[in-house]
Amino acid sequence: MKNEIRVFCPATIANVSCGFDVLGVALDSVGDEMVIRKTTKKGITITKLEGQDLPLETHKNVAGVAGLALLAATDYSGGFEIEIYKNIKAGSGIGSSAASSTGAVWAMNQLLGKPFSNLELVQFSMKGEELASGVQHADNVAPAIFGGFTLVRSYNPLDIIKINTPKELYATVIHPQIEIKTSDSRKILKTTISLADGIKQWGNVGGLIAGLYTEDYDLIGRSLQDYIIEPIRSILIPAFDNVKSASLEAGALGCGISGSGPSIFALSKGKENAKKVANAMQDIYNKVGIPYDIHVSRVNLEGVKVIK
Amino acid sequence: MKNEIRVFCPATIANVSCGFDVLGVALDSVGDEMVIRKTTKKGITITKLEGQDLPLETHKNVAGVAGLALLAATDYSGGFEIEIYKNIKAGSGIGSSAASSTGAVWAMNQLLGKPFSNLELVQFSMKGEELASGVQHADNVAPAIFGGFTLVRSYNPLDIIKINTPKELYATVIHPQIEIKTSDSRKILKTTISLADGIKQWGNVGGLIAGLYTEDYDLIGRSLQDYIIEPIRSILIPAFDNVKSASLEAGALGCGISGSGPSIFALSKGKENAKKVANAMQDIYNKVGIPYDIHVSRVNLEGVKVIK
Repeated sequence: MKNEIRVFCPATIANVSCGFDVLGVALDSVGDEMVIRKTTKKGITITKLEGQDLPLETHKNVAGVAGLALLAATDYSGGFEIEIYKNIKAGSGIGSSAASSTGAVWAMNQLLGKPFSNLELVQFSMKGEELASGVQHADNVAPAIFGGFTLVRSYNPLDIIKINTPKELYATVIHPQIEIKTSDSRKILKTTISLADGIKQWGNVGGLIAGLYTEDYDLIGRSLQDYIIEPIRSILIPAFDNVKSASLEAGALGCGISGSGPSIFALSKGKENAKKVANAMQDIYNKVGIPYDIHVSRVNLEGVKVIK
Repeated sequence: MKNEIRVFCPATIANVSCGFDVLGVALDSVGDEMVIRKTTKKGITITKLEGQDLPLETHKNVAGVAGLALLAATDYSGGFEIEIYKNIKAGSGIGSSAASSTGAVWAMNQLLGKPFSNLELVQFSMKGEELASGVQHADNVAPAIFGGFTLVRSYNPLDIIKINTPKELYATVIHPQIEIKTSDSRKILKTTISLADGIKQWGNVGGLIAGLYTEDYDLIGRSLQDYIIEPIRSILIPAFDNVKSASLEAGALGCGISGSGPSIFALSKGKENAKKVANAMQDIYNKVGIPYDIHVSRVNLEGVKVIK
């Protein structure tokens, strides 16, 4: 058995418009890399962290905390060293913390001979999410572990469903260079919603799931609507309405806030459409003068994976 | 082209636990019969109505009102006679009004050479639902027209999705002999819900749709939960909690209120299980001394259909 592996840890889009706290999807060409190495020394040591200014102390790092949760569930007598090469910016809204925590536990599970199920790996990773945002949410870590689209049907007990992902689905993500902390963007949400909006929302969740199984891209697009969270959170994101309408005009199936923002995502059928949407999004931020990162990626079907 | 047809008009279960106002499913061996006949005389005449004490006047009868909506959309110069043979009791919560309005418009559409789509037939039928309950809801008429499970993704614009229906799915429905009017049972609902309950609900809608497409009976069962409507409406239904727990113990995948009640439905895998659930439900009402009707039926896959 190998003592060291290098893994790709995908960025993820949580919520996906209608599915607040339950839906998520993994990206294929946006993500971090990590090297995980077995050591005879007990515990977890983060030996390298490049690309972002994040804590190296195990207990303060999401990969460390998730890894410790896994270690505590084994009788493995040794430990792990972790190297983290971040490409995903913290606070961008495309699952930066989830990439680190899932990459750590997925790789450790490989090195230990796969004693844990994907569901258990999600549970360990949720400890990292709790450190990052104060909440053990699963909507980023589930797609990072399972790949493709995932549904968190229930949190108690935790029940994750991997949803069929149409092959031609591409995501465009634009990240305006402002930071919104997940904890802050949760605070502005109301604790109650109208029943009428709830009905619209679960109608769209049903439509999106049906569209994913039947590979009906038009239905997927019609279902990508959020009556509950987007109207509140979008006010924190510069030029959100312009970016959204430009994306839809450029041919996107749908467009919304990625996770708690500030990144905005769009889904398109085919890479060419996704690129057109990227151009339309960039045009808006170029005009407004807001610096941004932009990504076009196929939906990732396998989640965290070994590289090289 | 024929001048007269006899049709079976299926009973339907709306809401299906998690899908308030959006989900519905049609039954195969519970329903009304209607005879629809072309006439040279304009307008719609209800010539016979057996089995229930309901108004014969066209404008006061749901089949009449739905039929008039269809007629108004055609340039057909004649009219129709309608005979209605009710087996579904009004106010039972299994789509009595939907059976009559869909049966009328579906049969008229056949006799006119099918000028209208299923979606248009649903829209005509919704006029009948408005007469019956004050609300143009579509969650009973959609499965009666399309068959199987249907999702009303959106009301405005109306968007109906026919969902895959696993072949071994059977319904058990028990109707305690008390009447709850749909309009009354809507009044007791709250107009706001907690965001936390909303999240659970759309997680379960997503899970149910995924379970129907993947024919995962266990997932279907886990998803048949209602955190929003059932806790309120179930207090109007005698011994609801006992019937539900007895059904689940007898092997039902899930159990809940059919539409606005008072009927209680359960879904099971296979006819034998559905019969066991029927016995368990009956035992409760026999003990409590409440008269009831009970039905076991496969899920109907085609909706309203020609008979004889």
